[in-house]
Amino acid sequence: MASDNAAGIHPEILAAINRANNFHALGYGHDEYTPQAKMLFNQLFDADVVTEFVFGGTGANVLALACMLQPAQAVICSATAHIAVDEAGAPERFLGAKLIDIPTIDGKLRPSDIRSVAHLRGNIHHAEPAVVSITQATELGTIYTAEEVRQICDTAHELGMLVHMDGARITNAAAALGATAKALRSFTIDAGVDVLSFGGVKAGLMFGEAVVFFNTSLASRVGYVRKQVGQLNSKMRFVSAQYVEFLQNDLLFKLANNANAMALALFERTRHHKSLGLTTPPAVNSLFPTIHEPAAAALREWTFFWDWDLPNNQYRWMTAWDMTVDDIEIFAEGVSQALKI
Amino acid sequence: MASDNAAGIHPEILAAINRANNFHALGYGHDEYTPQAKMLFNQLFDADVVTEFVFGGTGANVLALACMLQPAQAVICSATAHIAVDEAGAPERFLGAKLIDIPTIDGKLRPSDIRSVAHLRGNIHHAEPAVVSITQATELGTIYTAEEVRQICDTAHELGMLVHMDGARITNAAAALGATAKALRSFTIDAGVDVLSFGGVKAGLMFGEAVVFFNTSLASRVGYVRKQVGQLNSKMRFVSAQYVEFLQNDLLFKLANNANAMALALFERTRHHKSLGLTTPPAVNSLFPTIHEPAAAALREWTFFWDWDLPNNQYRWMTAWDMTVDDIEIFAEGVSQALKI
Amino acid sequence: MASDNAAGIHPEILAAINRANNFHALGYGHDEYTPQAKMLFNQLFDADVVTEFVFGGTGANVLALACMLQPAQAVICSATAHIAVDEAGAPERFLGAKLIDIPTIDGKLRPSDIRSVAHLRGNIHHAEPAVVSITQATELGTIYTAEEVRQICDTAHELGMLVHMDGARITNAAAALGATAKALRSFTIDAGVDVLSFGGVKAGLMFGEAVVFFNTSLASRVGYVRKQVGQLNSKMRFVSAQYVEFLQNDLLFKLANNANAMALALFERTRHHKSLGLTTPPAVNSLFPTIHEPAAAALREWTFFWDWDLPNNQYRWMTAWDMTVDDIEIFAEGVSQALKI
Amino acid sequence: MASDNAAGIHPEILAAINRANNFHALGYGHDEYTPQAKMLFNQLFDADVVTEFVFGGTGANVLALACMLQPAQAVICSATAHIAVDEAGAPERFLGAKLIDIPTIDGKLRPSDIRSVAHLRGNIHHAEPAVVSITQATELGTIYTAEEVRQICDTAHELGMLVHMDGARITNAAAALGATAKALRSFTIDAGVDVLSFGGVKAGLMFGEAVVFFNTSLASRVGYVRKQVGQLNSKMRFVSAQYVEFLQNDLLFKLANNANAMALALFERTRHHKSLGLTTPPAVNSLFPTIHEPAAAALREWTFFWDWDLPNNQYRWMTAWDMTVDDIEIFAEGVSQALKI
Repeated sequence: MASDNAAGIHPEILAAINRANNFHALGYGHDEYTPQAKMLFNQLFDADVVTEFVFGGTGANVLALACMLQPAQAVICSATAHIAVDEAGAPERFLGAKLIDIPTIDGKLRPSDIRSVAHLRGNIHHAEPAVVSITQATELGTIYTAEEVRQICDTAHELGMLVHMDGARITNAAAALGATAKALRSFTIDAGVDVLSFGGVKAGLMFGEAVVFFNTSLASRVGYVRKQVGQLNSKMRFVSAQYVEFLQNDLLFKLANNANAMALALFERTRHHKSLGLTTPPAVNSLFPTIHEPAAAALREWTFFWDWDLPNNQYRWMTAWDMTVDDIEIFAEGVSQALKI
Repeated sequence: MASDNAAGIHPEILAAINRANNFHALGYGHDEYTPQAKMLFNQLFDADVVTEFVFGGTGANVLALACMLQPAQAVICSATAHIAVDEAGAPERFLGAKLIDIPTIDGKLRPSDIRSVAHLRGNIHHAEPAVVSITQATELGTIYTAEEVRQICDTAHELGMLVHMDGARITNAAAALGATAKALRSFTIDAGVDVLSFGGVKAGLMFGEAVVFFNTSLASRVGYVRKQVGQLNSKMRFVSAQYVEFLQNDLLFKLANNANAMALALFERTRHHKSLGLTTPPAVNSLFPTIHEPAAAALREWTFFWDWDLPNNQYRWMTAWDMTVDDIEIFAEGVSQALKI
Repeated sequence: MASDNAAGIHPEILAAINRANNFHALGYGHDEYTPQAKMLFNQLFDADVVTEFVFGGTGANVLALACMLQPAQAVICSATAHIAVDEAGAPERFLGAKLIDIPTIDGKLRPSDIRSVAHLRGNIHHAEPAVVSITQATELGTIYTAEEVRQICDTAHELGMLVHMDGARITNAAAALGATAKALRSFTIDAGVDVLSFGGVKAGLMFGEAVVFFNTSLASRVGYVRKQVGQLNSKMRFVSAQYVEFLQNDLLFKLANNANAMALALFERTRHHKSLGLTTPPAVNSLFPTIHEPAAAALREWTFFWDWDLPNNQYRWMTAWDMTVDDIEIFAEGVSQALKI
Repeated sequence: MASDNAAGIHPEILAAINRANNFHALGYGHDEYTPQAKMLFNQLFDADVVTEFVFGGTGANVLALACMLQPAQAVICSATAHIAVDEAGAPERFLGAKLIDIPTIDGKLRPSDIRSVAHLRGNIHHAEPAVVSITQATELGTIYTAEEVRQICDTAHELGMLVHMDGARITNAAAALGATAKALRSFTIDAGVDVLSFGGVKAGLMFGEAVVFFNTSLASRVGYVRKQVGQLNSKMRFVSAQYVEFLQNDLLFKLANNANAMALALFERTRHHKSLGLTTPPAVNSLFPTIHEPAAAALREWTFFWDWDLPNNQYRWMTAWDMTVDDIEIFAEGVSQALKI
């Protein structure tokens, strides 16, 4: 239950990697898979988007934001956003830009949060809020509805700002909201998002994320900046081939559906422990139980999971594409045992 | 009442500038005034400090922090700190470092604020909080007592962090806390501050701030970094000569005493207007009245002052070294007139 | 003969500073002098240019370039350019951009130099050369003719690049090329330069340079970026007032004429020392003599001047706006004495 | 002959990836392979080195340099260095540091090159040369002998500088110099190199390079900086597992031996075409023939290879770990055909 990063590679995706090794191919995307993967992104979003592949999630976010910011502009984000707290200051270092971290209850920004800092625009003494970055699904396991994203985008655009979506777990959100391309589009391109960091690694790939520009005018220098940010993969085909597999036959939705379902299963099997405080079914693939000592230590010695909010004894359990009901039942049994200590 | 920036140059300081023009002098500090000014800083702080002059306040803060930070470290500051909101993102751009902005009631950080983010240290996923920056007097017109600064410093040092003080209005604070060198030392070098941005412009100089390293080991590359940050003054003597005057005969304290006294005089003359909400005497040289329309517009048409918190109809009145009781009485009369509208 | 930085402030300019101190004025350029100074720049260049004042020369260059560069672009400059070797890496640090330093014989770039790196454009593996920065007068005391600047600009523009001129000693160049506003325009705005760093300090001011945008579309974020780069002067009037004086009554040309004339006078009085290698009259206000030991040490002990190319025993003598023929004769006599040792 | 990037993954390395997928593993290097791979690097270099894995070569170089530089320092490198011309300005952008590019005949720096810029140290007006970066094998297909590297290191260290080696093709160099761990050590750790970018991708891996700190005191913040530079791989095991295979049973040397041997075979089969100008056997795995039109176009239409110096009709042929003598003979025949046109 450590993380969806702890899961491996889906067998069909690994098979695709193996197949992609049977020949020489030009580097840096001039292979046969990369255009195919880009075409599949066009199909997924039913539009001529610009898609570029990168190595990892921090690289994806930094690259996206680098293409969206003008000098002396700032990014508005939730105080729990990955870019704000889990990228070791990579955005500030590479972008040289301020992040305006806004406290939220559930990891979700509201239009009013954006408006609350809009007065900082147009004054040369202040870094100018110009990009709103939201995470879908959020770092707290919540999701924005399509309507909520649209309100964020409408507000931002009205104020002359752009919208970035950190979609490290976007397929989990898509699964929760319908598990179809149409559902995915409803809260991304159709809602007005400008640039999307599209996550694959947590969803079953080996490595490799995508940055998808719905607002293609922002992509004019993406090729250069990707190289600058150290995210140009010389043997690109081994990322592209994964996406070719991942984007076909609804594999992206199937894997996310399973991860989400396992979190729900775990919720159902542990909610009766009132001390855990699990009162609401998970929207996607994570639960945030409260576990007091000595149960927490005992359970973690048995199997690792991450701290979340230690002063409040809160932890994070996270399910993955490859878990089974058996896995969940074994873990739930372990929880029961630990809580008896 | 716009700002202490709106005041001019104290006559004795301007006279010093004029005197400094009577000969050729080597540039970049190799003149006769610069060593003298540095010696006066040593006397002021009763220690062998390292003092370097810069053009302006943003440059001073950025230079100080650049000398204090290692890669991937972050600065803890109040959410109302000048570095956080009034330097257009200069720290993030030049330092490539994250500022962790902490909401406060009165612009003052507490030891508990520092401890609240200490868990971010030692984890490669998080930018590491490593420097605490406090402003004295704060942007909200409050001041830290010497004991409060010492607690901040003790907490920071215990956690392996350093302490920067943004002293853009440090003489106002010193005046409020005793108006002597000893008082000044009590809340800076004696309290454990590592590096101080020492402000002169708001206190009566034409231009030129100083960065004072009490922790002199941090100054090893300050000469290079000052040049990099565009703060090396070729005709340095015209800054140094101002400080030679400013630091002698208690001029720095006299000017700050007057500015503070005028704020108090204004408070005394306007506190009876209950709608202004001026219930506490100012610690230094600013007042933050609440003024409803149409009074606010009328008063500002008459004489300019800055918005502070517009949604709450709050403004800032700021007094300066050169104001007189007559100035204050005229302004107070204007306030009375405006409030009658 | 150390530098034109070693000279003081011209008396009329110092008088202007003194006059500007007689009242309160809003900060950051909202005073009465700043618009007047900007209007005088419009008149000087006979166009609606955008002019912004900064503290110093490194700040001017960095600000200009920051407004001209897109991400992953590079600056082409002479290997002896101030931005390349005398700003401690400030451009790289603040801009995050590569400087492509091109060796030259005389400090002057040629169109062929620009074309020699044009193949680096359009390839995502290379930082894209996009701005050509030339210095006028150059760091080697040479000047570009108006026609030479025009050819640089035509070449750059044809290749989709922009042209920046570092004019730290632009009045010396203007004096050499005619000492009129028309002459100045001929090698700047009329020749196609996009952005100019206009130097005042070496020409007789106390401090304060200007950045002049002929290509005003590049100035859209200059206000923010100036703040970011630590170059926004709160008591702006004391720079603006200097420029109001400097730009009137041809003072800028008169002072530069004198500096240039004194270099020529020094050349005339020392050229007969064949060992100095002074074969060509100076274009502006510097000479680069070769002085062997022990003469060099003796002369420098007597009066300071800078090394230039020590392995080749080359030094720099630089004249200033305030020198007189008497000064020159005394120095020339000192040279004669030293060479006899 | 496009690049060693165009080759795929060695079968045993791909098999190792497949094996690594059979279970859950903690992310970010807390798996079982990563410590094993690090131990193998210790064995390879016969020392307790610090090894960290990254995604790609630009990331490796930037990370290494970021750990070696103090503020306002500069990197000395060959003008043909990958960091200077083929990383789109990533070093300048991420490091904020100047690269001092030195022209060379053969891509190799000499001690005299380092000494030629040593005078830039100790002067606050200049970025301080502090790291020497050499590439082994160089971008021009040449190699430094162990003695040459030692002289570079001795010179650098004498001057207080550090040495970085960009080893994107280090196994090719090691193969050329003996194809043993001892040979590899002779020109790296034993010669005095401080930090090494160790390349795997061009040598037969899918992705993933290593940064090896021989001077382990420089590694104190490497974990944070790797995250900042977007090079922390969440599913790290899939890189580590490749290195575990690559570093065992001399696979790294065997693959490089083959690549080098194929370049030599190609040289032997094409040197008789005098117009190609191939007079010296290749040191490693690249040849730089001169090919005039229409032959060049015809040959490239048949199979892709890169331009090198187009104005001089020079191209690059590069062999890889997986080529066979048959491949070489077919290509050599193609060359013969093209040259007949």
